[in-house]
Amino acid sequence: MGKEKSDKPAFQLKVPKGTKDWEGKDMVIRDKIFAQITEVFKRHGAVTIDTPVFELKEILSGKYGEDSKLIYDLADQGGELCSLRYDLTVPFARWLAMNSSIQSIKRYHIAKVYRRDQPAMSKGRMREFYQCDFDIAGTYDPMLPDAEIIRITCEIFESLGWQGRYTIKINHRKILDGIFSVCGVPQDKLRTISSAVDKLDKSPWTDVRKEMTEEKGLDPEVADRIGEYVTKKGGRELLEVLTNDMKLSTNESAKAGLADMDLLFTYLSSFDVLDRVSFDMSLARGLDYYTGVIYEVITEGSAPQTATDNQAKPKKESKKPAADGEEDDRSNDPSVGVGSVAAGGRYDNLVSMFSGKQQIPCVGISFGVDRIFSITKQRLASSPAAAAAIRTNEVDVYIMAFGGKGWKVKPKLPQQFKAAEANGVPFAVILGEDELKAGKCKIKEMGLPEGHAEKEGVMVELENLEQEVRGRIEKANARAGDALAGGMGGLSV
Amino acid sequence: MGKEKSDKPAFQLKVPKGTKDWEGKDMVIRDKIFAQITEVFKRHGAVTIDTPVFELKEILSGKYGEDSKLIYDLADQGGELCSLRYDLTVPFARWLAMNSSIQSIKRYHIAKVYRRDQPAMSKGRMREFYQCDFDIAGTYDPMLPDAEIIRITCEIFESLGWQGRYTIKINHRKILDGIFSVCGVPQDKLRTISSAVDKLDKSPWTDVRKEMTEEKGLDPEVADRIGEYVTKKGGRELLEVLTNDMKLSTNESAKAGLADMDLLFTYLSSFDVLDRVSFDMSLARGLDYYTGVIYEVITEGSAPQTATDNQAKPKKESKKPAADGEEDDRSNDPSVGVGSVAAGGRYDNLVSMFSGKQQIPCVGISFGVDRIFSITKQRLASSPAAAAAIRTNEVDVYIMAFGGKGWKVKPKLPQQFKAAEANGVPFAVILGEDELKAGKCKIKEMGLPEGHAEKEGVMVELENLEQEVRGRIEKANARAGDALAGGMGGLSV
Repeated sequence: MGKEKSDKPAFQLKVPKGTKDWEGKDMVIRDKIFAQITEVFKRHGAVTIDTPVFELKEILSGKYGEDSKLIYDLADQGGELCSLRYDLTVPFARWLAMNSSIQSIKRYHIAKVYRRDQPAMSKGRMREFYQCDFDIAGTYDPMLPDAEIIRITCEIFESLGWQGRYTIKINHRKILDGIFSVCGVPQDKLRTISSAVDKLDKSPWTDVRKEMTEEKGLDPEVADRIGEYVTKKGGRELLEVLTNDMKLSTNESAKAGLADMDLLFTYLSSFDVLDRVSFDMSLARGLDYYTGVIYEVITEGSAPQTATDNQAKPKKESKKPAADGEEDDRSNDPSVGVGSVAAGGRYDNLVSMFSGKQQIPCVGISFGVDRIFSITKQRLASSPAAAAAIRTNEVDVYIMAFGGKGWKVKPKLPQQFKAAEANGVPFAVILGEDELKAGKCKIKEMGLPEGHAEKEGVMVELENLEQEVRGRIEKANARAGDALAGGMGGLSV
Repeated sequence: MGKEKSDKPAFQLKVPKGTKDWEGKDMVIRDKIFAQITEVFKRHGAVTIDTPVFELKEILSGKYGEDSKLIYDLADQGGELCSLRYDLTVPFARWLAMNSSIQSIKRYHIAKVYRRDQPAMSKGRMREFYQCDFDIAGTYDPMLPDAEIIRITCEIFESLGWQGRYTIKINHRKILDGIFSVCGVPQDKLRTISSAVDKLDKSPWTDVRKEMTEEKGLDPEVADRIGEYVTKKGGRELLEVLTNDMKLSTNESAKAGLADMDLLFTYLSSFDVLDRVSFDMSLARGLDYYTGVIYEVITEGSAPQTATDNQAKPKKESKKPAADGEEDDRSNDPSVGVGSVAAGGRYDNLVSMFSGKQQIPCVGISFGVDRIFSITKQRLASSPAAAAAIRTNEVDVYIMAFGGKGWKVKPKLPQQFKAAEANGVPFAVILGEDELKAGKCKIKEMGLPEGHAEKEGVMVELENLEQEVRGRIEKANARAGDALAGGMGGLSV
């Protein structure tokens, strides 16, 4: 008894709540998504930087509004107080402030971030998750970097094979501020009313109005005026409507925002991406640091009524840090969408919060890879041929030996086959004593269907072995590539 | 005054002690080292897994002996207690224990690990640093995986261009245990005497003997007997000496270890790597979990007398967690080496510490990329041509426009050139109004020396533009590749 007890570890064998191990085909799919995104970033001239996983606690303070309570702190073991990074944007701004010789840069950063939130694994909402960020820092022609971000976003989703299946919602903080101002929102209610508006993607206007008036004490007439604006969405024609709006045209903030959007639409038209964009007045975004254009990308599965997205876009309600043991009961509902798959915007004042003086205007976007992964995997599930074509292992050929009088071989041949199959190695070359003497050996492709001409392998001359194997590998790779392209959209292999 | 004060952040703008931002060419060099190492891992059939950056605190408990005090804990913010991973080996063993269907695997993992140690940045000793781990788990022919690890290690350092500049020290825990036993070390002093032996790479025998007898209370005669064994090093002939040693041959542990080493040497000879290996009786390695062969790779610059290496091999003395403000005064001494660049060994019992029952024998090695990076960079510093050939940016051509009557261009041409140069873009294509009308444009290679025939650019027909640019890019890439190969050894680009 005593012995048996000491053999058992005294704790539960698991990963921390809201985290997971990545392995096997998931890892391969995720790496391919990274590769695809990185390729687009590099094509646009971006370089990458890598910042520490934790920052001084003070660096993160006051950047995330009420979401700050989701920040993971390190224990005070003596010395500096540190916190795990919450996103990649604040570390980038801190880096820019520390490297004042750099006045402009396009940088991308793919790394894990940490949020002590209630996890919902099936929706891709985790406590540890990857972000892929692309940001343009520096002074350029007005709205040109903002338009390039949208162009890049389109290139990425097209390269992932999402043609026609995503929408980039855009809005402008200055227009929103102008609307709130002309509608009569008191200065001290600006942020809380803005966060109520941001819920219009999940809740109908009547609910949002109720929150504004009953919970947040806004004058119902003011709420109704806001409602007229923020329920609008459209394209360039909406811009015209707003520009001709008598009330808005008296507001400097709104006018500046509308001028920006006009220029942005001109660039988007030149960049041939206007049709992917929806000018959506309900988009407000939670983070405090945005100052201009804001973006959010939704797709099929970003279920508008139920999704509680907080990775790319932190949600504002019910943000108690989750106690362990609790589980998000929606996490097993497969019909629940994954929220937005990318989000970002312009933040012109964040760097100067660190540097004290120097202002470097920035605009960027963050891709939620775990969510993109979830959707890619769902799509793969409907294509077994594509799923089967994903290999975790890059070994093409497994060399096996029969053994014979002259030589002993361990393990036995059936075990060798088992090992090759378990590892997903597609070809075997089988060396038998008699065949070798006759200058021959056998090539066998694993997993061929019954009745295939080469099902039992094919005997080839030793001197042609390399050429025979190479030819078959190329054909098999081409087949696997076709199957994958069918299942993963354009995700190249 | 008040305003100026509020502009300044109230804290120091820096990264946490012992961490750094990676950027620019450093990032490119590091990525190339990763790529080179990964290629070798994959060639040997390894798949990768990715574990969370933090584990339940209990998972790490009792695995690192007295180094446990260097573990970073997360603050207790409610819920599970977690710690940042200290290495990649323990998370791998935890993963194996959780995935009991996996009986054998070759896995690699490249990720950051965390140690709250006194940093010495110039030596590549950091609190946050990368490890590249390769491990073989499962039951195979005896010593075959152990030999493959050494073969892989050689392939990696050869591919990095370190031919003839590294040595793989090997020893065996069972031989050491046998030596301690026949010399008369009391059971309760085994680990502490072993860790004294491990200092023989930095300290002469007289110092180590003093530590054993004066600090650790070992009988001087026992120490002298140990001294006769552990100061030996050599090749296969040393194995014969030990096998014929009368005292050792009575010890079961030593005999088992020597039989293992004999088989290992046979495989190393077949694998053509025997000459890279030094059988070094002074190698003991700190970590508790090793049970068989142990490895450590040193190179020029792993200065034997002064290096205090604790990444690949934790040192045992003066392991107080460093208070902040203190600085390691050796960190500015450029003559100080970086310690070992890779280390590992066999750990057959770690998985069963988690699973309770199931035993999965494992052997692996960890490459200290920050140290490999430091050495690569030192070598690059002596080759300016190679250093210059490293590009942070993969854009080949910058398109510039003069503008003219018909079209306005911003920014002006000199600013466009400045941007191209700052970004390290090697070619410019310059569009001028008159030239375009004549069906021509200019290609200019950046940074050509004075007097070069194409220094001022070359005018080409628009219809040949693509071909003309392509040809020049290929030539330039070939030149850069040659320069890099000269400076970085075999590090391919």
